Amino acid sequence: MKLYSYWRSSASYRVRIALAFKNISYAYQAIHLVQDGGQQFRDEYKSRNPMAQVPTLEIQDGGGLKHISQSLAIMEYLEETHPTPSLFPKDAYLRARTRQLSEIINAGIQPFQNLVVLAHVRETLKSDDKAWIQKWLGQGMAALDAAATSTAGRFLVGDSPTMADMCLVPQMYAARRMGVPLDKMPLLVRVDAACNELPAFQAAHPDRQPDAVVA
Amino acid sequence: MKLYSYWRSSASYRVRIALAFKNISYAYQAIHLVQDGGQQFRDEYKSRNPMAQVPTLEIQDGGGLKHISQSLAIMEYLEETHPTPSLFPKDAYLRARTRQLSEIINAGIQPFQNLVVLAHVRETLKSDDKAWIQKWLGQGMAALDAAATSTAGRFLVGDSPTMADMCLVPQMYAARRMGVPLDKMPLLVRVDAACNELPAFQAAHPDRQPDAVVA
Repeated sequence: MKLYSYWRSSASYRVRIALAFKNISYAYQAIHLVQDGGQQFRDEYKSRNPMAQVPTLEIQDGGGLKHISQSLAIMEYLEETHPTPSLFPKDAYLRARTRQLSEIINAGIQPFQNLVVLAHVRETLKSDDKAWIQKWLGQGMAALDAAATSTAGRFLVGDSPTMADMCLVPQMYAARRMGVPLDKMPLLVRVDAACNELPAFQAAHPDRQPDAVVA
Repeated sequence: MKLYSYWRSSASYRVRIALAFKNISYAYQAIHLVQDGGQQFRDEYKSRNPMAQVPTLEIQDGGGLKHISQSLAIMEYLEETHPTPSLFPKDAYLRARTRQLSEIINAGIQPFQNLVVLAHVRETLKSDDKAWIQKWLGQGMAALDAAATSTAGRFLVGDSPTMADMCLVPQMYAARRMGVPLDKMPLLVRVDAACNELPAFQAAHPDRQPDAVVA
């Protein structure tokens, strides 16, 4: 497998955690989202990912190379093809809540911190992208904290890490980098710390990727 | 089961199609997203859905009422608990592509047409929400059309309807309502028409819901 990834991309970071958690080895292909006007906009990359986003997973299937994008779709694919260790609890309701929390981040929060969206708010709408981030991340993550209360143990759903935690940690990384106050989300802060003690989460950290630029 | 829904909500519409497709009967509870300043913001509803969005599925589980939100999480739950007919093809790669196309809509397009986002763009940023819609829906749906090319048959993935089609039809409904030109997405137009011949898609149409306001 090959993963097209960018070190700071939170969607790429989610998939890297899942790959490490499942002990799946893969080749890392950096796609620089800023350099050269954004390498994700090149025709060659867009033929694999028409949304011009990272990550994309490249797999061998039936003798040819195939491509899967959208981080949660990739993680579900990894779960189906490499079921152990699982990204989900066993109970159907708790599995649903795991996906619910993952989607709150994936569809309810992250789209608003996407680099192209922030550039549009700043450059085309001539608006304050920092205020935009504070609003959507602040209210979305506070809602996520509330939504996780009924299922949380050491992790967001019970006492084992799930897909939801693999979405949470990159979201917390993004929120810290963008200066979002975390005082209204104590549960998220606690679970994030518990996750970051685990080797899979550590291995997937942006600073440890081949394309990291660490000061 | 009870579904908290709003007739025009595209995320609610997706879940209604899946419920009809699987022949699952349910009670319909309307949550009016505009009336009274938005019934989704009431504390009672937010206790079930902290993101203050529709849909929410209410289920009986272990003797108590439980709640699941986020449309794709609900659809995956319905698939796990009512596997036939399936929302997915059998092949792992095609299942992944089904989820990929669903997420392009769910996380890549729909968040930008959300009513609260449009109101923020219009009222707080003092920007043109129609231009905002044209940009994000126009480019997202053109990318979706391109992404579906390699798997499409009569439907987005092969010749049977999948979760991806259940996301597509509500997105097409929203795009038409918001005046987005559809000439750059011929595949989507063709598949949308094929879907709308099926009873499950017809039963879930906004105009047929108890809270519909049809001129």
